[in-house]
Amino acid sequence: MWNCWHVTRNLIRIAALVNGQPSHAVDVSDRGLLYGDGVFETLAVRAGQPCLWSAHMERLRLGADRLGIPAPDAGILRREADRLLAGSEIGVLRVTLTRGAGGRGYWPPPGLTPTRILALYPSTTDVSAAGSVSSSRLTLCRTRLSENRQLAGIKHLNRLEQVLARSEWQDPDIIDGVMLDGHERVICGTMTNLFLLDERGLSTPDLTHCGVQGTVRALVLKHARALGITLDVRTLQVADLIRAKAVFVTNAVLGVVPVAAFDGTRYDPGAMPEPLRRLIQQVRRAALTVETAE
Amino acid sequence: MWNCWHVTRNLIRIAALVNGQPSHAVDVSDRGLLYGDGVFETLAVRAGQPCLWSAHMERLRLGADRLGIPAPDAGILRREADRLLAGSEIGVLRVTLTRGAGGRGYWPPPGLTPTRILALYPSTTDVSAAGSVSSSRLTLCRTRLSENRQLAGIKHLNRLEQVLARSEWQDPDIIDGVMLDGHERVICGTMTNLFLLDERGLSTPDLTHCGVQGTVRALVLKHARALGITLDVRTLQVADLIRAKAVFVTNAVLGVVPVAAFDGTRYDPGAMPEPLRRLIQQVRRAALTVETAE
Repeated sequence: MWNCWHVTRNLIRIAALVNGQPSHAVDVSDRGLLYGDGVFETLAVRAGQPCLWSAHMERLRLGADRLGIPAPDAGILRREADRLLAGSEIGVLRVTLTRGAGGRGYWPPPGLTPTRILALYPSTTDVSAAGSVSSSRLTLCRTRLSENRQLAGIKHLNRLEQVLARSEWQDPDIIDGVMLDGHERVICGTMTNLFLLDERGLSTPDLTHCGVQGTVRALVLKHARALGITLDVRTLQVADLIRAKAVFVTNAVLGVVPVAAFDGTRYDPGAMPEPLRRLIQQVRRAALTVETAE
Repeated sequence: MWNCWHVTRNLIRIAALVNGQPSHAVDVSDRGLLYGDGVFETLAVRAGQPCLWSAHMERLRLGADRLGIPAPDAGILRREADRLLAGSEIGVLRVTLTRGAGGRGYWPPPGLTPTRILALYPSTTDVSAAGSVSSSRLTLCRTRLSENRQLAGIKHLNRLEQVLARSEWQDPDIIDGVMLDGHERVICGTMTNLFLLDERGLSTPDLTHCGVQGTVRALVLKHARALGITLDVRTLQVADLIRAKAVFVTNAVLGVVPVAAFDGTRYDPGAMPEPLRRLIQQVRRAALTVETAE
């Protein structure tokens, strides 16, 4: 796909397809731009293939359904992804689906054609080198997540809160910022889901009111069940994070990352018990699953 | 500006300038599209001039400051607006400012050049024909507004809640839908601010937690003060709307619209006392104020 490579002003070389055509242009009337009216997915690319394709497509479809946007045929998206990834060993693939171009005002006119945007970003680390990001730090963000059950869980394009939260720190050793909702509940990182181990066992925040149901989070839930590890989805607070014995975060690009510290709180790397280490190893491997197109 | 006219797929003819150039293309890496990372304004155009230019530019700057986006020189935007509006008597002008193209992930890299998009949409009604939309109906939306003080008041690009709320009705006689926050507080319409008259006097919802500080809302506050009419900014609930004697809504394109009914509740058109009628007349006129470029 040499003809769809493009260098943006801040020198990131990306390749893109807009509705199947090599292009870097989206219409000024696209509702994704006007209102954030759409959904997206971010996938790790390994050996020229997208990881966890089915899980990402399922969440994309769930989000599109929630917003009333007709989801494109998964086969079309997959063929476009394959075209875009041809010749690229590693990278990060973003799949965006908007309601399409048209109308003025919030009302979405019927019959709009959704816009599909696939963009391939370079990645400096091979995600299959599990443990390349072996341990890192978290910080507490001031920016809060707003609560709306209708939008909770899906990965929609209204991401200003994450942008503002991510602007709060510059330190490259801080891998992510912890975000609270308006009720002092810990929900997630700006780009990760969060898990902690304390005397009650393994827990992860309830995402009924806000947050994104991560694809790797789903793998942690599934593998914990298979290993007989109790994983509680519950309300967590900052005090729970501070008192935790071990913390790890997950996302589709980083996989699973054990947390060394949360601001002033340090976690003992030896406190991670063997079953949890096994869980993390299994999820790391599973997060790299590539599914070849049928 | 014949060379910047363009027909979108759903047959609306719009003219646009992107960073001062006639164009209908925005980069796929623009953070406005990726995350809704930006702000916008919608202005009525009358006699080839934008109405309430200064007030809109002030809110745009306020929003940009809140998001940490460098606001462009107001003179540049005004010259671009004048170029775009040349030869168009009436219409609706949308001014969008995004953080610009670049980066992957929520972190906004330093030094991005913000993107300016000016788009002129046709309008079928001349806004200066005050009273053309003389009276109309409201409905209650199921979609809720989420609360975030950091984003409240400004007109940012994260507008999915308004899109979903506006999708709830098709009836063209319904001019707007009333939106509540998660605490059952009435906040605004999907595209209007709301005012009601009851035995306590004139009131409008407090917008500390969500909602947009409308430019015409500001005119109502200012002119009420000048006329000695007490206007209370307070917490309102659906019951207050149902018990109200009179209700009106405001926005930059419609001006001031008296409400005839809110779902099953009808308001007596004769219940609007003379001072309130005078206030509405004054605000309608003020909302049409055009400021010629210096």
